[in-house]
Amino acid sequence: MTDRAYQLFEEQQQARGINLEQVKKSLKALKIETPSWGYGDSGTRFKVFQKVGVPRNPFEKFEDAAQVHALTGLCPSVAIHIPWDKVEDYSKFRSHAESLGLSIGAVNPNLFQEEDYMLGSVTNADPAIRRKATDHLLECVDIAKETGSRDLSLWFADGTNYPGQGDIRKRKAWMHEALAEMYKAMTPHMRMLIEYKCFEPAFYHTDLADWGMAYNQALKLGPQAEVLVDTGHHLQGANIEHIVAYLIDEKRLGGFHFNSRKYADDDLIVGSTNPYELFLIFYQILSAGQDADPAVRENVDNIAYMIDQSHNIEQKIPAMLRSVLNVQTQYAKALLINHAEVEEAQRNNDVLAAEDAVRRAFEFDVTPLLHAIREEQGLPLDPMKAYLSSGYPKEILARGKGGASW
Amino acid sequence: MTDRAYQLFEEQQQARGINLEQVKKSLKALKIETPSWGYGDSGTRFKVFQKVGVPRNPFEKFEDAAQVHALTGLCPSVAIHIPWDKVEDYSKFRSHAESLGLSIGAVNPNLFQEEDYMLGSVTNADPAIRRKATDHLLECVDIAKETGSRDLSLWFADGTNYPGQGDIRKRKAWMHEALAEMYKAMTPHMRMLIEYKCFEPAFYHTDLADWGMAYNQALKLGPQAEVLVDTGHHLQGANIEHIVAYLIDEKRLGGFHFNSRKYADDDLIVGSTNPYELFLIFYQILSAGQDADPAVRENVDNIAYMIDQSHNIEQKIPAMLRSVLNVQTQYAKALLINHAEVEEAQRNNDVLAAEDAVRRAFEFDVTPLLHAIREEQGLPLDPMKAYLSSGYPKEILARGKGGASW
Amino acid sequence: MTDRAYQLFEEQQQARGINLEQVKKSLKALKIETPSWGYGDSGTRFKVFQKVGVPRNPFEKFEDAAQVHALTGLCPSVAIHIPWDKVEDYSKFRSHAESLGLSIGAVNPNLFQEEDYMLGSVTNADPAIRRKATDHLLECVDIAKETGSRDLSLWFADGTNYPGQGDIRKRKAWMHEALAEMYKAMTPHMRMLIEYKCFEPAFYHTDLADWGMAYNQALKLGPQAEVLVDTGHHLQGANIEHIVAYLIDEKRLGGFHFNSRKYADDDLIVGSTNPYELFLIFYQILSAGQDADPAVRENVDNIAYMIDQSHNIEQKIPAMLRSVLNVQTQYAKALLINHAEVEEAQRNNDVLAAEDAVRRAFEFDVTPLLHAIREEQGLPLDPMKAYLSSGYPKEILARGKGGASW
Amino acid sequence: MTDRAYQLFEEQQQARGINLEQVKKSLKALKIETPSWGYGDSGTRFKVFQKVGVPRNPFEKFEDAAQVHALTGLCPSVAIHIPWDKVEDYSKFRSHAESLGLSIGAVNPNLFQEEDYMLGSVTNADPAIRRKATDHLLECVDIAKETGSRDLSLWFADGTNYPGQGDIRKRKAWMHEALAEMYKAMTPHMRMLIEYKCFEPAFYHTDLADWGMAYNQALKLGPQAEVLVDTGHHLQGANIEHIVAYLIDEKRLGGFHFNSRKYADDDLIVGSTNPYELFLIFYQILSAGQDADPAVRENVDNIAYMIDQSHNIEQKIPAMLRSVLNVQTQYAKALLINHAEVEEAQRNNDVLAAEDAVRRAFEFDVTPLLHAIREEQGLPLDPMKAYLSSGYPKEILARGKGGASW
Repeated sequence: MTDRAYQLFEEQQQARGINLEQVKKSLKALKIETPSWGYGDSGTRFKVFQKVGVPRNPFEKFEDAAQVHALTGLCPSVAIHIPWDKVEDYSKFRSHAESLGLSIGAVNPNLFQEEDYMLGSVTNADPAIRRKATDHLLECVDIAKETGSRDLSLWFADGTNYPGQGDIRKRKAWMHEALAEMYKAMTPHMRMLIEYKCFEPAFYHTDLADWGMAYNQALKLGPQAEVLVDTGHHLQGANIEHIVAYLIDEKRLGGFHFNSRKYADDDLIVGSTNPYELFLIFYQILSAGQDADPAVRENVDNIAYMIDQSHNIEQKIPAMLRSVLNVQTQYAKALLINHAEVEEAQRNNDVLAAEDAVRRAFEFDVTPLLHAIREEQGLPLDPMKAYLSSGYPKEILARGKGGASW
Repeated sequence: MTDRAYQLFEEQQQARGINLEQVKKSLKALKIETPSWGYGDSGTRFKVFQKVGVPRNPFEKFEDAAQVHALTGLCPSVAIHIPWDKVEDYSKFRSHAESLGLSIGAVNPNLFQEEDYMLGSVTNADPAIRRKATDHLLECVDIAKETGSRDLSLWFADGTNYPGQGDIRKRKAWMHEALAEMYKAMTPHMRMLIEYKCFEPAFYHTDLADWGMAYNQALKLGPQAEVLVDTGHHLQGANIEHIVAYLIDEKRLGGFHFNSRKYADDDLIVGSTNPYELFLIFYQILSAGQDADPAVRENVDNIAYMIDQSHNIEQKIPAMLRSVLNVQTQYAKALLINHAEVEEAQRNNDVLAAEDAVRRAFEFDVTPLLHAIREEQGLPLDPMKAYLSSGYPKEILARGKGGASW
Repeated sequence: MTDRAYQLFEEQQQARGINLEQVKKSLKALKIETPSWGYGDSGTRFKVFQKVGVPRNPFEKFEDAAQVHALTGLCPSVAIHIPWDKVEDYSKFRSHAESLGLSIGAVNPNLFQEEDYMLGSVTNADPAIRRKATDHLLECVDIAKETGSRDLSLWFADGTNYPGQGDIRKRKAWMHEALAEMYKAMTPHMRMLIEYKCFEPAFYHTDLADWGMAYNQALKLGPQAEVLVDTGHHLQGANIEHIVAYLIDEKRLGGFHFNSRKYADDDLIVGSTNPYELFLIFYQILSAGQDADPAVRENVDNIAYMIDQSHNIEQKIPAMLRSVLNVQTQYAKALLINHAEVEEAQRNNDVLAAEDAVRRAFEFDVTPLLHAIREEQGLPLDPMKAYLSSGYPKEILARGKGGASW
Repeated sequence: MTDRAYQLFEEQQQARGINLEQVKKSLKALKIETPSWGYGDSGTRFKVFQKVGVPRNPFEKFEDAAQVHALTGLCPSVAIHIPWDKVEDYSKFRSHAESLGLSIGAVNPNLFQEEDYMLGSVTNADPAIRRKATDHLLECVDIAKETGSRDLSLWFADGTNYPGQGDIRKRKAWMHEALAEMYKAMTPHMRMLIEYKCFEPAFYHTDLADWGMAYNQALKLGPQAEVLVDTGHHLQGANIEHIVAYLIDEKRLGGFHFNSRKYADDDLIVGSTNPYELFLIFYQILSAGQDADPAVRENVDNIAYMIDQSHNIEQKIPAMLRSVLNVQTQYAKALLINHAEVEEAQRNNDVLAAEDAVRRAFEFDVTPLLHAIREEQGLPLDPMKAYLSSGYPKEILARGKGGASW
């Protein structure tokens, strides 16, 4: 059935003028970074449920991540969080990763889990705390040098809970000071990815509240600073694909933290709430990938796709598999958009034809295509099934409960 | 200055036809229940910051609550959470409360902090877990008998994170089964207050998601079941005062969990984000309090006003003082509405006059009025200042860190 | 290619245990009512753009609607709006409809376009206006008798723009009075479908603001009153499929006004913003359709599926075609859910398997299936293409501009 | 009573360290521009209700605006909308304004009410329409020269309703082209105020969707381009005062379009939904007004305060009076903030003290203060009452119905 399905799929797409070899090439080039913390226990403010088999240290987290990569071919790098993934010997850590077929990806500083940071880290009114926080940023640059990481992903919990609590403009200046100091410490091949978030854990104002604030910082810092879009960090109704297109057009889209939400920053499996939104994000990216301006195309080529989720109730590795498979599926669908057709309808101001040309690609079932590339790559056709029927799920039970929290 | 201020205030209000003696009587009758968990440490999913001086057990929580009551005269009862406030000997607990001038208020079951409840408590697909959860509800009825509590406040974290995860309609039936069993166990003087919440910690669907679902359960259970409105548990834009008016009109408003939010369920100090909303809630209550129907008036008289906040970054006792003072302030302002004037403008379809008649009451400064009743009640004019300059803040430092979490 | 595609599809689905004959039968039974006003010009508060070829009267609206039905086989009835579709002789109107293969569907009173209704119709403080509004409701019952319509779809713009402007509880009582009078006038085979809406055109409070308020009215009126869910009439984040499941479980889901929105009540083509949401609505309906309780199944069988959109910038007939085709597509996908598989995963509390069992059905391409049933019904395989290449689009240009507004 | 009230108020504020003479000076300097269209009929997409007495032409609109200024002393200029306020002879128009004690304020182009602009004006895929739209912008610059207006307020309805409908990045470029051409045509004393809006009338994407997009355009255009904040044009939850503080800090806050909303862009009377938000906006402005950087202070001094409302159900002139009085009231309250006290609490990370220092100013009743400055300016103490008891409301009835729409 699989062969016939692919054959039929191929005929269909060729009839639409889609170059399937190019599509396959693009699909095989897709890389999605998984986060070390996505393999640990996480939860809500009400409770962190503890799962049996959760990794107990950074090394085990990478072992789990290696499973995801081995089964999907999609996830050769793993983001780390400092100090959660702090180790004594980074060269040993790096070797461990490499022995698993992985590399260490983005370094994520943590400036929200110490008592000192209750009222802000780099924007705290207390200069000693600001210094301490900035030092941690510099420490992360040093770690990135050791791990060979290109990207430094910055998310700040900094903000206030009440009107008047903080001086918004002073805090803005302090934020810039810290980022500027960190920026200066980076090597030329490094990138600073600046994340924004509208609220939580700050409930009145967040110092970097939206893409505009992150972008403005990046502009002032220089070309190695870019914006990181976390798909869950927007107010209800925000058109995320618009922001994505905008940032690429300004050559400042650094990457994504993928996840899904229905209400606030729910951190669910990406693609599980509104898969069409994920598809539309890729539509914007692929459309920009055909731009006449090489700088725009270069930005597209350098987007870091990363998962950032909290698997509160799910088995961690299957949840990660589902996540990267969802990304792959929507990316594959977006690759089936016939851009010439869309553009012609747009040029003619033909609203319904343009909408149809985009949506139609979403409606194809890309399973035959994904099976074909997996077969060509020597991967299991159904990575989830392969995982569940492997020995690994049972093997890790020996770790017991009480593994790493986040 | 105080006397002259009150004199002037009195003249102003009398000129508007406000019966200040009645206003003062109403103000003195206002009772706001504080929650035992509001004195403990709480936080966000990112971090629970630990404060020095936080109470270490239910007894100390009541001691702190007694401070709030002593300084404001507003908070003679304290809600408890089971098992957080589980004690061996409830008569001893009750005596302790009474010795502090307090009574034990609403009993709140906790069905969200055990591993078993990860996928639901009373709506879990596993009948053994449903049984366990229902037994906890029955246990809380028993505790309420021992503590002499009238109200059982029920909030369920039950829900799902993904489409398909649970059978929405079966879960609805299971919810009803559990509530019906609990309802039957209650004594005739008890009330079941059913809370609703749109999301968090469930991120796709929550079994009791809105007032309509809580109300419908109450309808089916009987007259001792009513709806509990938590001001933070609504989707953005929801008109909470409309819901309040509606529920009173159906004689099913059981009470409030007061707090404030700008984004989701932020659990900030009530009145700190949009004080006008709190005022408008009281406007609806006071308007209904003049209804011709005695059943409506009876509902108004029996509303349980309760605080439900998470003081993540604030000093706990001052945060509670600020909360109850904010409630008192907005209630005082609402008492200055001239209902006859509002109604005449409404009758005449005079939009601007009606709006003005309500808003004008909000614009008065009620400080002279509050000073006057505090003086008459032998309370400090400025309870916050009195607290901060008392010995208590220093005294509790001896408790050290690591007090009760929530 | 079509035949091979269907053959493959059939094999796939049979391998999953899906009874395709049953699926086809269900698909052929699907009926979607289109609204007469969807063929007229509509717009935003900023501008109503006028299209050439828009029908100039109710008779021409039905001619356009007949095109949609002829090409899709899905739309045998057309909802009317009074007074927009008021005619002198309803038997002539009915004959016209029948001659086109159509019947007259739901009757929609209009209580928002007369100067008198500026501050409310059935909830206006002025009793004369309430009387006039109620009389219009009764007039619509009479018209429904003449048109043979079963359903009376009620949407009220009634509400207020400012706090204090109206007495919320009095207005609630007036609403009930009017509905009760109308209910009494209905014949036993009629149904009152009560719509709710959170805001617009009322900007502070709307008298029937949410499903709970509509449901509560229906409960009090009697079994012929049910709730009408307009997919655009919810606050951001509302879980519409939850509400749908809830109402069916209470046997009070009357029907739908389908459309799509990203922000507020945008009235876009249904399925164009988040097609997964539409699929999930059908999942709930189909799940309930297998309930053991015959009353639940009866409710499912009697749901009125209706389009309610404003085609501000689109060509009207193509926009309607796209709408009903989107509904058909998502319904077809939902029919591919293997409920036994979902239920087993739910029973086992297997979160990811349950989610997968639902989502997988969404990912199938149902084009071969839709082609098959269209072929069996003698319909064009691609109704949109068939319409665009027919003579009708040119023919109606002769109508010129300035057709019916809404 | 008035004198005693002010005396008491003065004592209170002096005790708090507030310089009342400075406060009064600031209050007397407050200028709020009213919009010509706020005196005309407006409505929702459902209906524009027509009021008796609405001005029939630009000249009468200015006569109504003159009433508002005469009674409040706050509104010496009036914004105009082209072509609604297009006149043959602008010098005559200007003289008419001056004879009424008014000047012509901001010029607002209208690019949303012609058939050509259905799918965009300056971002339309059709170059001829883009040209036409840009020409209108240039025409408005010319008109501004004739009227002596400094500000050009630009709001674009441009956007799309469906994914794929338009090329987001091309439209971005076209927007910039048009603005750049207009910018070049401006005289050195002119300012371009760029407004943003998240949605409506475009329902999928709006070309200038948020402050970041407007700001980025301004940055690229040059120092005469600034951002215009319409308080209703934000997604739910957006912290508007944060955006205000941010823009001032970047010296790019051009001004405000004041109005109020509970749900979407409701265009209600400013301050009627959440007066505290308006107060907090002024808090940020006044805080920045004390900045050490003269460029920041200069930005504060040049903020254009403008009303932009749709009085759908209200009497127009009273609605405008209420609006400017609400602005004055909240501004007066914000002037009572003791910034030194706030800053000290912020410096000490004293959350509750800082919050209190801001909120306390909001709780004062500023009526005595407003009475005092009105008396000093020879204005009626209660402008609304003065208007209603004047002959003007009756006088304008002679205009009949059918006045200017918007």
